Amino acid sequence: MDSFGERLRGRIDERGPLCVGIDPSADVLSAWSRSDSVEGLEFVARATLDAVSSVVAAVKVQVGFFERFASSGLQVLERVLRDAAAADVLVIADAKRGDVVTTNEGYARAWLGEGSPLAADAVTVSPYLGLDSLEPFFRLAVATGRGVFVLASTSNPEGRSFQLARTGDDDTVEASVLRRVSDLNRRAGPGLGPFGAVVGATRERPHFALADLSGPYLVPGVGVQGASAADVGRLFSGCPRGSVLASVSRAVANAGPEPRALRDAAQRWRDQLNDAL
Amino acid sequence: MDSFGERLRGRIDERGPLCVGIDPSADVLSAWSRSDSVEGLEFVARATLDAVSSVVAAVKVQVGFFERFASSGLQVLERVLRDAAAADVLVIADAKRGDVVTTNEGYARAWLGEGSPLAADAVTVSPYLGLDSLEPFFRLAVATGRGVFVLASTSNPEGRSFQLARTGDDDTVEASVLRRVSDLNRRAGPGLGPFGAVVGATRERPHFALADLSGPYLVPGVGVQGASAADVGRLFSGCPRGSVLASVSRAVANAGPEPRALRDAAQRWRDQLNDAL
Repeated sequence: MDSFGERLRGRIDERGPLCVGIDPSADVLSAWSRSDSVEGLEFVARATLDAVSSVVAAVKVQVGFFERFASSGLQVLERVLRDAAAADVLVIADAKRGDVVTTNEGYARAWLGEGSPLAADAVTVSPYLGLDSLEPFFRLAVATGRGVFVLASTSNPEGRSFQLARTGDDDTVEASVLRRVSDLNRRAGPGLGPFGAVVGATRERPHFALADLSGPYLVPGVGVQGASAADVGRLFSGCPRGSVLASVSRAVANAGPEPRALRDAAQRWRDQLNDAL
Repeated sequence: MDSFGERLRGRIDERGPLCVGIDPSADVLSAWSRSDSVEGLEFVARATLDAVSSVVAAVKVQVGFFERFASSGLQVLERVLRDAAAADVLVIADAKRGDVVTTNEGYARAWLGEGSPLAADAVTVSPYLGLDSLEPFFRLAVATGRGVFVLASTSNPEGRSFQLARTGDDDTVEASVLRRVSDLNRRAGPGLGPFGAVVGATRERPHFALADLSGPYLVPGVGVQGASAADVGRLFSGCPRGSVLASVSRAVANAGPEPRALRDAAQRWRDQLNDAL
């Protein structure tokens, strides 16, 4: 079984380095003249998936916008995940989960477990409780051929003071995350491993040689958040081909809801990213 | 309307400083001879709530163990939250959510929004993306009389290197979280405010005077994780009466499933904590 990193690389080679974020926020529901309800949520999520699936390497579902509607919202997400699997589209669940080891067993099972209605191809996790606390995600990802993206350097400005704080080894927190993810991939075997990192395109280069991750990068911050395709190219220059996946959400959603307009917007980003990476 | 901090203080004055953690993990389901299913999950959660509600200031539901069963697990949690409200028991949703501002609007609505099936009296949040990114939680908590506990110094050992990392102000990350939470409470008005912090009982004192938070502490790590009631008393000595809530999970669950045994175990912890605080 190929690792998630190798599977994702195959998709990027085939379709380009674009990930479209499915972010059915209250704002997007309103901009698309949909009711602020589970029906509106489901319309926006499925319409986006349908429109962009042929031009992306993966989609990223923003779990917070589904959870906003409690268990009914997660039922919508379960249906979207089924649709995506049927359409053979890779899905990253942007859940940013992270707790102590015992609790992470529960979260890992939900997002990466065989047969779980919420299982995606990869999940994002948050390292505030330490890299080692995330071990249940890492273990289950290897067992099921799925992936984990650990937050390192996020695209929003509010996180800088903690992510740039200096650990006892005089490393920054974000560089320490990247170094640990790299170690995990090297132990997992050759090629791109199952363990990725989130590094925002709006950020400066971390104190870590980005080309050394041996795993995929998920790169938010592109489009409305301020970074261009060229910014992504500059930040990740020298990284292996197929290891960088740039995520664009609002800049695509703003073209909706007409399917052709959504696909065209996604395609423009894909072409720009192809040129830059 | 009283702030969450004042409401919690009222409960602690009345019933003592114990919070029982409702952690229906696979291990607990098995120890209670229940099937590893939503039925087992629901049995353990509701039985624990029923047995302990008269001897606790609050219960803490561990969201990861419900999410393990995807939307069906969250439906169970919704029923548990309804039961708890009917029994007039305060509930803290231990969700450890945390994302960028726009996504946090979604999570905040789920866990703190009026009318949300998942709304609890308070929710735990994770600060990796920065304190300012958590603003939607803070704002909605004030608007709905609910509370937010920000992770500062967690009970597990794996998080130390990041939580003790030094920010640009030569503060530690955990002390910086505590200082910011304290500022928010002072701006919110007199008395104990709506903004709390998670500080594990297994930890040394942070570089912050704990008595200055002006809000409640949620204190995990007691019992099976290693800390005693006396450890809680020592760590929080000098803090205002009613501002410290110690959470015990497995050490109570181990007495189950017989209701009387569960209540007796909870009562013993309550009495020890009452003596220590």
